[in-house]
Amino acid sequence: MKGLDTKNIRLDIEYDGTSFSGWQRQPGVRTVEGEIAAVLSELTGAEPELIVAGRTDSGVHALGQVANFSTVSDMPPREMRNALNSLLDEDVRIIAAEEVPLDFNARYDARRRVYRYEITPRPTSVWRRFRWYVKWSLDASAMRSAAERLVGEHDFSAFTYKDETRSPFVEVTEIRIDEIEPAGVALTFVANRFLRKMVRMLVGTLVEVGRLKMQPEEVCDTLESCDRTRSGPCAPPHGLFLVRVEY
Amino acid sequence: MKGLDTKNIRLDIEYDGTSFSGWQRQPGVRTVEGEIAAVLSELTGAEPELIVAGRTDSGVHALGQVANFSTVSDMPPREMRNALNSLLDEDVRIIAAEEVPLDFNARYDARRRVYRYEITPRPTSVWRRFRWYVKWSLDASAMRSAAERLVGEHDFSAFTYKDETRSPFVEVTEIRIDEIEPAGVALTFVANRFLRKMVRMLVGTLVEVGRLKMQPEEVCDTLESCDRTRSGPCAPPHGLFLVRVEY
Repeated sequence: MKGLDTKNIRLDIEYDGTSFSGWQRQPGVRTVEGEIAAVLSELTGAEPELIVAGRTDSGVHALGQVANFSTVSDMPPREMRNALNSLLDEDVRIIAAEEVPLDFNARYDARRRVYRYEITPRPTSVWRRFRWYVKWSLDASAMRSAAERLVGEHDFSAFTYKDETRSPFVEVTEIRIDEIEPAGVALTFVANRFLRKMVRMLVGTLVEVGRLKMQPEEVCDTLESCDRTRSGPCAPPHGLFLVRVEY
Repeated sequence: MKGLDTKNIRLDIEYDGTSFSGWQRQPGVRTVEGEIAAVLSELTGAEPELIVAGRTDSGVHALGQVANFSTVSDMPPREMRNALNSLLDEDVRIIAAEEVPLDFNARYDARRRVYRYEITPRPTSVWRRFRWYVKWSLDASAMRSAAERLVGEHDFSAFTYKDETRSPFVEVTEIRIDEIEPAGVALTFVANRFLRKMVRMLVGTLVEVGRLKMQPEEVCDTLESCDRTRSGPCAPPHGLFLVRVEY
C-alpha cells in the first residue's frame, strides 16, 4: 500500500512575474499557482492544495518562493521536480522538491521573509522587467537614515490597505540599502510577515526621502499616524523580488 | 552657418540582445545598429555612419557599448538622447550622448574592452535570457587556475574562427571568476581587443575545466597549439555582456 501513504512535498520556486497575474489561482488568468497546480494534477492524478509562504502580487518576481502540498503519489521528489520543469513554461522553475515532515506548513512555519526591491536612475533595457527606473537621483544615505526608523515591531497601517481581518503589527528586523551596478540602489526588507503592498509602499516612501521631497524624520510621523494618505506612492511591482523564506 | 558645422557625437548604449541579430546592420533583420541608425536618420535628416567599439554577435547583450557618428545637426546631445529613447524600442537604451573631439573614434581609440559571462547551475526563470544554465556543478578554483594561464599577450587562434585578415595576437589583462547569487559564476575578461567568438570559446573551455573534464594545465597546451579543435565548445550568446569600453 506504499503508494497510498500521504506525503508532504515542499517546492522551492523561482519565477519571472512579468507575465503572471500574481501567485494566487484565479479563474481566467495566468497565475503561478494555477500553472503549477495544473501540471501537478497531470503528474499525480489529483488536484493539489498548495500552501504558499508569500502570495505575491501581479508582476512581482520570486527567487525563493516556498510552497507545500500533500500527495499520495510515490513519484520521487527529484523526478517530480524534473517533470514539473519540463512541463512548465520557462518563466517558472522548480529549484528543488523534497519530502518534508507531515506537519510542515510553508505559510505558518515561516519565521522570516526577505524581499528585495531594485531601483535605477539610469534608463535600462537589460533590467527593464526587474528594476524600477526613476528619473530622480536618489540620496542613499538619507534613505538609510529613514529606513533605520522603520526597523522594529510597529503598527504598519500607514503602509498597507486597510484590512480589518489581519493584525497590522509587523516586526521588521532589517532594512538594508545597497548600491548596485551600474547605478541605483537595492532595498532589502526582512520581517516576520508583510502586509498587503507593504514593501512597495515602504519603497515609494523611501524614494520620496531619497529624492529629498520628505525628511528622514517625517517617516516616523507617518508610521505613527497609521494614516495611509501620509505615506508615499505604491512603487510598481516589477522591481520587487521575494528573495527567501526562512523556517 | 552654425548648423553646418560637423560635430562628432558619442553614444553610450545598453541593450538586451535577446531579440537582435547582433550589432551590425544587415538587410532584412533587426540589428542594434540598424535600429539606432534609422531613428538618427529621422532626427537629423541624414543617414549616420556609426563607428562602434565592439560588434556584438546575435543574442549578446551590452551594458556599455560605445559608438560615435558625425552630424551637422545642431540638436543638443542631451535632447538627442531623450528623442532616441522615446523613439527606440525598450530593448535598447541610450545611456548618454555627448559631443566629443572630431578625432574621437569609438573603435580605434578603445584601449580596453571588458566582457562578462554568467553561468548558473540552478534552473532559472528570472535570468533565463542572461545566464547560461548548465547541468554540471562547476569547480571555481579549477577554473581560476586555468584562467590565470591565459592572461598575457598570446596568439589566441585556438579560441576563434580562422581569419587571415586580422592578427590573432591579443593582450588579455585579466580574467576574473566571481561567485554570483543565488548560485553560479561570473567570468570577467579584460583585453585590448577580442577575436570573433573568443570570449564564448574561452568560456566553453573554462567550463570543461570547471566540470573536471579538462585539467587546468591542458589549457596551456590548447593555447600553444593554436588549434581550434582542441578548445572547448562555443558557449551560447545569451550569457555574454559587453560591460565597458575604456579609452
